[in-house]
Amino acid sequence: MSQPFLLGVLGGMGPLATVDFMYKLLAATPAADDQQQIPVVAWNVPQIADRQKALAGLGPSPLPQLLQGIHRLNEAGASHIAIPCNTAHHWYGALREASTAPLLHIVEATLEKLQTAPARPEHVGIIATQGTLDAGWFQQGLTRLGITPVLPTADEMQNWFVPGCYAVKRGAPAEGGALLLRQAQALCARGAGALILACTEVPVALQAIGAPALPQTFDPAVALAERCSQLWQAYRQAAFS
Amino acid sequence: MSQPFLLGVLGGMGPLATVDFMYKLLAATPAADDQQQIPVVAWNVPQIADRQKALAGLGPSPLPQLLQGIHRLNEAGASHIAIPCNTAHHWYGALREASTAPLLHIVEATLEKLQTAPARPEHVGIIATQGTLDAGWFQQGLTRLGITPVLPTADEMQNWFVPGCYAVKRGAPAEGGALLLRQAQALCARGAGALILACTEVPVALQAIGAPALPQTFDPAVALAERCSQLWQAYRQAAFS
Repeated sequence: MSQPFLLGVLGGMGPLATVDFMYKLLAATPAADDQQQIPVVAWNVPQIADRQKALAGLGPSPLPQLLQGIHRLNEAGASHIAIPCNTAHHWYGALREASTAPLLHIVEATLEKLQTAPARPEHVGIIATQGTLDAGWFQQGLTRLGITPVLPTADEMQNWFVPGCYAVKRGAPAEGGALLLRQAQALCARGAGALILACTEVPVALQAIGAPALPQTFDPAVALAERCSQLWQAYRQAAFS
Repeated sequence: MSQPFLLGVLGGMGPLATVDFMYKLLAATPAADDQQQIPVVAWNVPQIADRQKALAGLGPSPLPQLLQGIHRLNEAGASHIAIPCNTAHHWYGALREASTAPLLHIVEATLEKLQTAPARPEHVGIIATQGTLDAGWFQQGLTRLGITPVLPTADEMQNWFVPGCYAVKRGAPAEGGALLLRQAQALCARGAGALILACTEVPVALQAIGAPALPQTFDPAVALAERCSQLWQAYRQAAFS
């Protein structure tokens, strides 16, 4: 209790997904007034080298700009840091080492939520960047839980996921939603009884089109927001008791 | 061009209105990708003494916490600072003096937008806190433009505005929306042909209920976001030309 609670958000990937995450933080926190809400400092600076291109070997690494964000958030007094971008967790180790404040992990938060879900289907689809899919975090986590992952095909990635994701980034979330819905439906057609929306642009896009009938979805941004909020609520309770 | 552009947002008043403002910043900025979006550092720390109570003489001043936010944003490298809370502009002078980065003014941005609106009705209603109404900023601005302000009555403030505003602050924006809609309709019934939603909780609340038929509305949060975005777009153009 030496340092006051202050959640640092390393955002900008993309900026709209960061705002969506900040909204989810508030939605996850019961509060009777402004003062009970979770205190946040957000670094929503999107001038970061493209993560998908970097991981495909087609562009510079975003690590220097990510480290700058981590430093600024620590300087601002962050007691914990969350990164509302799945793909950026590729650099999680380097960022954790550079940070005084502990970094939460979006995949861990999501898998924990999946593990405690009342009903778990046998097959779960993963909608994510190629970088996140290549890392294998979600596939390994599902396999540990005895769940079979259902993945996008190369054609689906090229025709639906990638353009859908970049549509959100250029401020056309509904356009992205139409493409990402087709991606979601394709995974369901191949047997997925639930979906992990493992790129923070995806829930933004699906929400923009009113997300018609999908099976159970797990939103890593919500799982991460809930974990952050639980830390704040525990701190608040301890501080006021 | 010595300092890179970075918008500091002094938020938390309330936290949901700040997230709404951050969304409006993105909506105001044409961008082809993440990297063209406006870079923002947001201090969304709502542990600030209640502004309405302070101005009514019923609670401590929020100035120390506001100054702390201003200092943190300057330390984080903010080149400009915006405050998405009308009432907090009561302390604008003290905050401006304490800040290296220039502070934009939400009332100025709104009045400028009103001045250049294609159609201006003769009577414009103001939905705002008692503190903002007592300051007279919007009334004076309207009068200068030859427009007659239409104000809430004491009963309306007590029954609709105040509980509507605090409903948003405790995470019940739809409940707030129902009350604030009645406030809006009362002003229209007394002749207002347009409304200034001069408390940043109000547009959040009205949006939560799908805001049924209202006349032209001026949203100071949008006006401020547009002004911030124009500064960023001018900087971006100069930096890349």
